[in-house]
Amino acid sequence: MSNFVVVDRIAIGSVATDFQPSAFKAALAEFISTLIFVFAGQGSTMAYNKLTSNAATSPAGLIAVALAHAFGLFVAVATSANISGGHCNPAVTFGAFLGGNITLLRGVLYWIAQLLGSTVACLLLKFATHYMTVSIFTLSSGVSVWNAFVFEIVMTFALVYTVYATAIDPKRGDVGVVAPLAIGFVLGANILAGGAFEGAALNPAVPFGPALVSWNWHHHWVYWAGPLIGGGLAGVVYEFTFISRTHEPLPVVVEY
Amino acid sequence: MSNFVVVDRIAIGSVATDFQPSAFKAALAEFISTLIFVFAGQGSTMAYNKLTSNAATSPAGLIAVALAHAFGLFVAVATSANISGGHCNPAVTFGAFLGGNITLLRGVLYWIAQLLGSTVACLLLKFATHYMTVSIFTLSSGVSVWNAFVFEIVMTFALVYTVYATAIDPKRGDVGVVAPLAIGFVLGANILAGGAFEGAALNPAVPFGPALVSWNWHHHWVYWAGPLIGGGLAGVVYEFTFISRTHEPLPVVVEY
Amino acid sequence: MSNFVVVDRIAIGSVATDFQPSAFKAALAEFISTLIFVFAGQGSTMAYNKLTSNAATSPAGLIAVALAHAFGLFVAVATSANISGGHCNPAVTFGAFLGGNITLLRGVLYWIAQLLGSTVACLLLKFATHYMTVSIFTLSSGVSVWNAFVFEIVMTFALVYTVYATAIDPKRGDVGVVAPLAIGFVLGANILAGGAFEGAALNPAVPFGPALVSWNWHHHWVYWAGPLIGGGLAGVVYEFTFISRTHEPLPVVVEY
Amino acid sequence: MSNFVVVDRIAIGSVATDFQPSAFKAALAEFISTLIFVFAGQGSTMAYNKLTSNAATSPAGLIAVALAHAFGLFVAVATSANISGGHCNPAVTFGAFLGGNITLLRGVLYWIAQLLGSTVACLLLKFATHYMTVSIFTLSSGVSVWNAFVFEIVMTFALVYTVYATAIDPKRGDVGVVAPLAIGFVLGANILAGGAFEGAALNPAVPFGPALVSWNWHHHWVYWAGPLIGGGLAGVVYEFTFISRTHEPLPVVVEY
Repeated sequence: MSNFVVVDRIAIGSVATDFQPSAFKAALAEFISTLIFVFAGQGSTMAYNKLTSNAATSPAGLIAVALAHAFGLFVAVATSANISGGHCNPAVTFGAFLGGNITLLRGVLYWIAQLLGSTVACLLLKFATHYMTVSIFTLSSGVSVWNAFVFEIVMTFALVYTVYATAIDPKRGDVGVVAPLAIGFVLGANILAGGAFEGAALNPAVPFGPALVSWNWHHHWVYWAGPLIGGGLAGVVYEFTFISRTHEPLPVVVEY
Repeated sequence: MSNFVVVDRIAIGSVATDFQPSAFKAALAEFISTLIFVFAGQGSTMAYNKLTSNAATSPAGLIAVALAHAFGLFVAVATSANISGGHCNPAVTFGAFLGGNITLLRGVLYWIAQLLGSTVACLLLKFATHYMTVSIFTLSSGVSVWNAFVFEIVMTFALVYTVYATAIDPKRGDVGVVAPLAIGFVLGANILAGGAFEGAALNPAVPFGPALVSWNWHHHWVYWAGPLIGGGLAGVVYEFTFISRTHEPLPVVVEY
Repeated sequence: MSNFVVVDRIAIGSVATDFQPSAFKAALAEFISTLIFVFAGQGSTMAYNKLTSNAATSPAGLIAVALAHAFGLFVAVATSANISGGHCNPAVTFGAFLGGNITLLRGVLYWIAQLLGSTVACLLLKFATHYMTVSIFTLSSGVSVWNAFVFEIVMTFALVYTVYATAIDPKRGDVGVVAPLAIGFVLGANILAGGAFEGAALNPAVPFGPALVSWNWHHHWVYWAGPLIGGGLAGVVYEFTFISRTHEPLPVVVEY
Repeated sequence: MSNFVVVDRIAIGSVATDFQPSAFKAALAEFISTLIFVFAGQGSTMAYNKLTSNAATSPAGLIAVALAHAFGLFVAVATSANISGGHCNPAVTFGAFLGGNITLLRGVLYWIAQLLGSTVACLLLKFATHYMTVSIFTLSSGVSVWNAFVFEIVMTFALVYTVYATAIDPKRGDVGVVAPLAIGFVLGANILAGGAFEGAALNPAVPFGPALVSWNWHHHWVYWAGPLIGGGLAGVVYEFTFISRTHEPLPVVVEY
C-alpha cells in the first residue's frame, strides 16, 4: 500500500474542494493576508517618504516599493493559499468568478474581507507612524487618466493570467511554490514599470484602504475599472482557451 | 512495493517527530543558523555605516539591509529546518509553544541557543570590522516607543502567522521551499516598511546581541514585548482557527 | 493502486508530448507571455527615463531594470511552460531546434509569436506612457559592436545552457520551479554585468519590438547574431555532451 | 506497480552514484558553470566601474554586485547540480572532501576546472569590455588582512554549512530548488555584509581569475586560506554532528 502524502494539489487561485474550510474561515484568511500585504507594501511607501521627507520617487525608491510589494504578495498568497485560494485581490476574485472558479456569494465575502484588510492595515500604519499621511495612489505629471487606465488593464491582465497559468490550470506543476513566486514577481516587475507613471496597483484593495483612511477619492475609479477589466479579460481568455475541462478537476490526493 | 522517498514532511516551524535529533543537537543547529543570520544581517548594517561614514539611512541602504536579512533568514530557516524546526527567533519559539507545537524545556534551550548565536555573531563582527560599533536598534526621530511597539506587534504577528501557515499547518504544501522563502520575504518586506521608523527586528535575538556587545539597552524592552505579543497572538489565532487536529500530525514518510 | 499525480514532468524548454496543445495554442501562449515579459522589462527602462528625465544609467537604475527583467522572465516562463514549453525567446527556440527538441515548423510559429508579442507590448507602452520614446538597445560609449557581439554570445550561451540544464535535460529535478527561477536569474545577473555596456538583450525579440516601433535599426543585427550563435552553441554543446538519449524521454506521468 | 519518477534525489553538493557521468564530464560542467557565475559576478563589478568611472563602492553598487553573485551562483549550482554536484567553488569541494563526500582525484579535477572557468570568464570580460581592468579583490581602508581572514572564515563556514544542510544531508527536503536558492542567498547576504570591507569572495576561484588576468596577487593568500579553513571546518562539523550514516545514502529513485 502506498501511504504517501501529496497536498500540493490544493488549488491556489481557485477554491479547494477537499479540506474546504467554511467560507467564513476563508474570508478571515483573506482579511489577514491582505492586511499583511498592504501593511508591508503601503508601509514601504511611507518609509520612503519618511527617509526622504516626501521627495519625488527615485529609482532606488521604486525598487524598495516594488520589492516590498513582491515579497509581501508572495507571503499573502502563500499563507492563504491552502485556506482561501490565495486571492488577496478583488480583481483576482473577479477573474476567478468569470472563469467559473468561485461562486458569487463567496466572491462577495472575499471582496469585503480584502477591502477590510487593506483598511485596517492603513489604520495600523497611521498609528504606528505617528499619524503620517497614508499616501494615496496618484498619476505622475504628464500622465492622463486614460494612460493609467491602459496601464492597469494590461498589468492586471498579466497578474490574473499568471494566477490562472500557475495556480488554477490543472496542467500546472508545483503550485505550492511557483504560484506565489510568479504572482509576487509579476507585481514587482510591473511596479518597476508602471509605478513611475501611475503607482501600479493591479489590485483595487490596495488603493482602497489609503483612499478611505485619507478620504481622498481622486481618480480612484481608474484603480477599480482597470484591474477589473484586465483581470476579468484574463480569466475569460485563459479559462476558455487553455483549460480543457474534459475531465474532472484533479483531486487533492491525501492517502494514509 | 513503492520504495520512494518523501522527506519534505519534516516539519519546519514545529518539531519533527521522526528523525528527531537530541534536543542538544537541535539547540546547536539553532545556535549556528542564528549566528549565520545575524552575522549577515547586522553585518549589512555595519557595511552601510562603513560605506557612508554613518550617514542617515537612505532608500538604497534600507534595500541592502532588507535583502541581507531576507536572504539570511531564508538560509537560517533552510539550514536548520530539518534539525530543529528552523526557528532562529525567540518569538517564533514562543508562538510555537503557545500553540502546543514545542515543549517548554526545548523552548528554553532554543532561546538560549538563539541569544548565544546572536551574541557570538556580534563579537565576530566586532573583531572582523576592526572594532567598529555594533549598532543597536533605535527609534527614528518623531517615532515614539509606543509607535515602535505597535510596529513590532503587527510585523511579528505577520511573521509567526507565516510560519504557521507555510510550515506548521498540516494542509501546507511543499514545505521545503515555500516556508523559508515566505519567512525570509515577510521579514524583508517589513524591514522595507518598519525599518525606516524603528529598525524592524521582528525577533528579540536580533537586537539582543548588539545590545549586549555594545552594552546599550535603551528601549530594548520594546523589541521583546512587541515580538512576543505579536508572535504569541499569531500562534494562538492560527492554531485554534485554521488547524483542525482531528487526526494525528502527518507522519514523515520515508520508505525504502 | 497508486493514484497520485505528477505533472511536473511536462517539459519546460522542450515540447511536451502529453497534454500537447495545438501548435496554435502554444504560439498564442508564447505571444501572451512574451508580451507580459517585454511590457514589464521595457516599461522599467522607460520608468527610469521618466523618473530621471533620461539621465545616464546609474547603478540603481541598472538594478531596477535587471529585477524587472528577471521577475518578468520568470513569470513568462512559468506561465507558458505547461503550454508551449516556456521559450519566449527566439534564441531559446533556435537552441532547442538545433538540439532536436522542437520541429522547424513549430519553431517558426514561435518566432512569429515572440516578435509579435514584443511589438504589441511596445505599442501598448507607447500609448500608456503618453507617447514616450520606446528606447532601443544601444552601445555605451567606448564599446565597439564586436564587444557587444562577444557579450551577447557569452551571455546567451549562459541562458540557453541554463534552459537545457534545468528544463530539457531528463536528469533535471523539480522543473516547475527551478527552471523559471534559473532562467530569470541568469538574465538578471547578466543585465547587471552586460547591461552597462550594451543593454544585454540575450533575446532577439526584446530589442525587436522597440526597434520596430521607434523605427531605429542601428546595430540591431548584433542582437540577433550574438544570441543565435551563443544560444545555438549552447544547445549543441549541452545536447551532445550531457544528454545521453539511450532511452526514450521520460514520460509525463499522470495517473488517476 | 508504481511507475513514477523521482529524480530530485541526485545529490547536489555530493556526488551522485546513479547517473554518475564520467569525471571528465563532471569537470566540464564545473568549468562551464563557474565560467557563467564569474562572468556575471565579476562583470557586475566592472559594470559598476563603467557606470561610475571607478567611484568608491556605494550601497547601490553593493546591492548590484550582491544580486549578480547571488543570482549567478544560483544558476551555476542549478545547472551543474545533476552532473557534477554543483560545487563551482574550491572551498565547497574541500569541505565535501573532508566530510568524505568526494574522492581526492575527482576533487583535484574539480579545482582545475573551477580555476580555469574563472580565468576564461575574466579573459572574455577583458575583451568584451574593450580591455577594461579586471578588478581584483582588495581590502577597504582600515581593514587589516587578519580582519579579512576572519570574515572569509566565518562567511565560507556559513556557505559550506548551507551546502551540507540543504544538499548533502540525507534528511534534506526538496533539493532541486532549496539548495541552489540557499547557496545563492548565503553568498548574496554575506556580500552585503563583508563586501564593504574586503570584497567577500567565499570562494578561491572567484578572486583567482582576476588576479591571474591582472597579474596582481596582493593579499591573494587570504582568499584561499580563509575559505579553505572555514569551508573545511563546516564540512567536518556538519558531517560528524548532524549526519548519522547508520544506513546507506538514499538511492536515486527512478522507476519506469
